[in-house]
Amino acid sequence: MTTVESTGAALSDLLLSRIRDVADYPKPGVMFKDITPLLADPEAFSALVDALAALCRERGADKVVGLEARGFILGAPAAARAGLGFVPVRKAGKLPGATFGQTYELEYGTAEIEVLTDAFVPGDKVIVIDDVLATGGTAEAALELVRRAGGEVVGLAVLLELGFLGGRDRLAKALGDAPLDALIAV
Amino acid sequence: MTTVESTGAALSDLLLSRIRDVADYPKPGVMFKDITPLLADPEAFSALVDALAALCRERGADKVVGLEARGFILGAPAAARAGLGFVPVRKAGKLPGATFGQTYELEYGTAEIEVLTDAFVPGDKVIVIDDVLATGGTAEAALELVRRAGGEVVGLAVLLELGFLGGRDRLAKALGDAPLDALIAV
Repeated sequence: MTTVESTGAALSDLLLSRIRDVADYPKPGVMFKDITPLLADPEAFSALVDALAALCRERGADKVVGLEARGFILGAPAAARAGLGFVPVRKAGKLPGATFGQTYELEYGTAEIEVLTDAFVPGDKVIVIDDVLATGGTAEAALELVRRAGGEVVGLAVLLELGFLGGRDRLAKALGDAPLDALIAV
Repeated sequence: MTTVESTGAALSDLLLSRIRDVADYPKPGVMFKDITPLLADPEAFSALVDALAALCRERGADKVVGLEARGFILGAPAAARAGLGFVPVRKAGKLPGATFGQTYELEYGTAEIEVLTDAFVPGDKVIVIDDVLATGGTAEAALELVRRAGGEVVGLAVLLELGFLGGRDRLAKALGDAPLDALIAV
């Protein structure tokens, strides 16, 4: 494991080797990046969680936000390994109690995500974790939600950035000084 | 942390103290058990993950299955801490590639969950993790899916068992010799 963790390139190669391309999913013409082989591989999954936990610590985070649903699979273990609390950002209607909601654009129509209004202590330093950064719409909405709920965004971390979709540019304003880290960029 | 882990009763008390009752959610007359305060508390969340990881090891599991979506938040960290791979069981239509599907009854209508057909190596010992055991419908369907995909069920572990809903009885046949562990039973 030392070798894997000692260089970002080696880690990136290991993780990428466990991601499967699935053609025409969820619709014709789309090449889907399936992370289930990575999750099922104990060595690769552990290396992924280690890397995300290290980012949580480097950013000085108090809490980790994971975005439903695959962001839960990465964010919750990273929080546990870094010794931090975990906060779910969920699709609308899934959280009990008072919530803040944020609508964002999809290719066709809109979607909404929510966070509990009391998810953070004011000033909590928050890192947001998701599996894939594509166009950045969900992440942008999540960063806005964290701030509305009183959190300070200290970073956004993803397993895989699909650079050709321009998410990083779209997020520049929402991120402000907070860094965006991608363990793999394609 | 030693004290917490050394007795099941102390752990149960700690975890239960971080679960919030929300009246009339998701509909009038239902008292919802909200685990978000537990997830947000680093000490309680870590104790929860430790306890689940210990169960994974005790059962001799090779892989951990988490049920979408809250089961991801508990199962993925447990897998990571136990050094095991993680397999998501998802709502229908969310997994890419060939899947097995299993339909189960809800109070009104039915729902379907799926697993990838190649999620397991034949004979993989599998522990299934979810947050709450209520009537047991989802868990029963998940145990069936694991077997259809070639896994051997070695246990079902939940954070909270709502005993008055009879899930344990309903699951007796599906569990066979595999134990059902609940960290809290009410």
